[in-house]
Amino acid sequence: MEQNSENKVQSKASEERQVQQVLARYTRAADQLNGKVASDLFVPDGKVEVYYGRGESRELLFVLSGQAEIENAMSNLMKPHPDRGWSHHTTHDYIIEVNGDHATIDAQFIRFDSVGEIRPENGWPEGTLGLMGKVTPTESGYYQPTLQKINGEWKIVTLVILHDLTFAIPGK
Amino acid sequence: MEQNSENKVQSKASEERQVQQVLARYTRAADQLNGKVASDLFVPDGKVEVYYGRGESRELLFVLSGQAEIENAMSNLMKPHPDRGWSHHTTHDYIIEVNGDHATIDAQFIRFDSVGEIRPENGWPEGTLGLMGKVTPTESGYYQPTLQKINGEWKIVTLVILHDLTFAIPGK
Amino acid sequence: MEQNSENKVQSKASEERQVQQVLARYTRAADQLNGKVASDLFVPDGKVEVYYGRGESRELLFVLSGQAEIENAMSNLMKPHPDRGWSHHTTHDYIIEVNGDHATIDAQFIRFDSVGEIRPENGWPEGTLGLMGKVTPTESGYYQPTLQKINGEWKIVTLVILHDLTFAIPGK
Repeated sequence: MEQNSENKVQSKASEERQVQQVLARYTRAADQLNGKVASDLFVPDGKVEVYYGRGESRELLFVLSGQAEIENAMSNLMKPHPDRGWSHHTTHDYIIEVNGDHATIDAQFIRFDSVGEIRPENGWPEGTLGLMGKVTPTESGYYQPTLQKINGEWKIVTLVILHDLTFAIPGK
Repeated sequence: MEQNSENKVQSKASEERQVQQVLARYTRAADQLNGKVASDLFVPDGKVEVYYGRGESRELLFVLSGQAEIENAMSNLMKPHPDRGWSHHTTHDYIIEVNGDHATIDAQFIRFDSVGEIRPENGWPEGTLGLMGKVTPTESGYYQPTLQKINGEWKIVTLVILHDLTFAIPGK
Repeated sequence: MEQNSENKVQSKASEERQVQQVLARYTRAADQLNGKVASDLFVPDGKVEVYYGRGESRELLFVLSGQAEIENAMSNLMKPHPDRGWSHHTTHDYIIEVNGDHATIDAQFIRFDSVGEIRPENGWPEGTLGLMGKVTPTESGYYQPTLQKINGEWKIVTLVILHDLTFAIPGK
């Protein structure tokens, strides 16, 4: 078993990894529909700006301002998971820039929704074995948060979300 | 071409990246159904614990104990790929904690299965061009390994796998 | 707000992250069908080698040689996105090796294509709300670039792309 002082220095996560892990925690909160955990990742007057678009063109859909609005939107306004259902907001291909106590991330995201099959009343028939259900990609786009390091902790100041898919608002 | 001593120091992968790359190698072994390569990533008495569930609730499905059981399960008990088929176990949104020679990872995973179309007997008709076949997400969940650094190499002690989808066992 | 000298040292991205971010920029260029941006990530005589296969066996499909060919292929030969369509080339499970000013990456990739639904002429009906459209995985395989650091910047020397799916060439 190796353990030396060099080792201990290295095991401190880099700023880039600390920044990336804030977004990793955000995706888990989104999958748990846990607005409290999500909003705690933001500064008190943090914002979520949701756009339709990619590349140069984008159209603002709505803004959540402050931790209370962010918490409420995620806990109460997102569609709950169906029975035996779950989601995975996954992020990819990070471009991270850290300048002192400011940082930006540009990440692709894909959301997947999973639904497990229901166990038959009399148990699984012969010939079935293993995982039963469906995993479907349902959303895609980009997360572009800006972050600030406050008292040693990275917090999201503004999370820009760009959606590829059309966003429907009834009557509009 | 730049090359200096600072450069050489930086090119040593961080502990976090070394830890992440153990899981990267595990996913490739799983896609190759290569139990030998996979089990070598574990300590001799390493374990794989497979659960149904996410968040707080989880139900233990089965445990593989020791390198021999892990090797056998991956090489002989996983369903072989169909003709022109392959899989990709992909992992996302790492949360890594390293403390000296101990480490934990929490990662999301999605499994994809791909199957290429068969080339027609007389070649591809006019109008076809490019990639032919299908890629389907088939599994999702979390990998939560704990690792230990032994003689300078990170090894998996226990790999907890949480599956979202229902796991069918005939007659149960 | 914390900012000190230790902080500034840490905020320099590691060689591994710099290398990873070259591939992250490549995936964005591919999604924008922007051959200029993509070819600038390569050395002047850089190459893209495209294969069918995985694991040990692979069959060479075609090679793009030099920045001009790479730029032209991405800008003019890739299928344009449909109306309200976009793609995401996503990469996963990096194994990165850096030796001085040389580096290699082995990454899994999945391509997704998204198409948003068209807004009805008279607006969205009651009962619709949120994202409308479809996200589909369409390609999978491996990216295996080799890179070289030149004047302080990592550039791709050769990008090996392994496709899982069958590649159709009419008449062949």
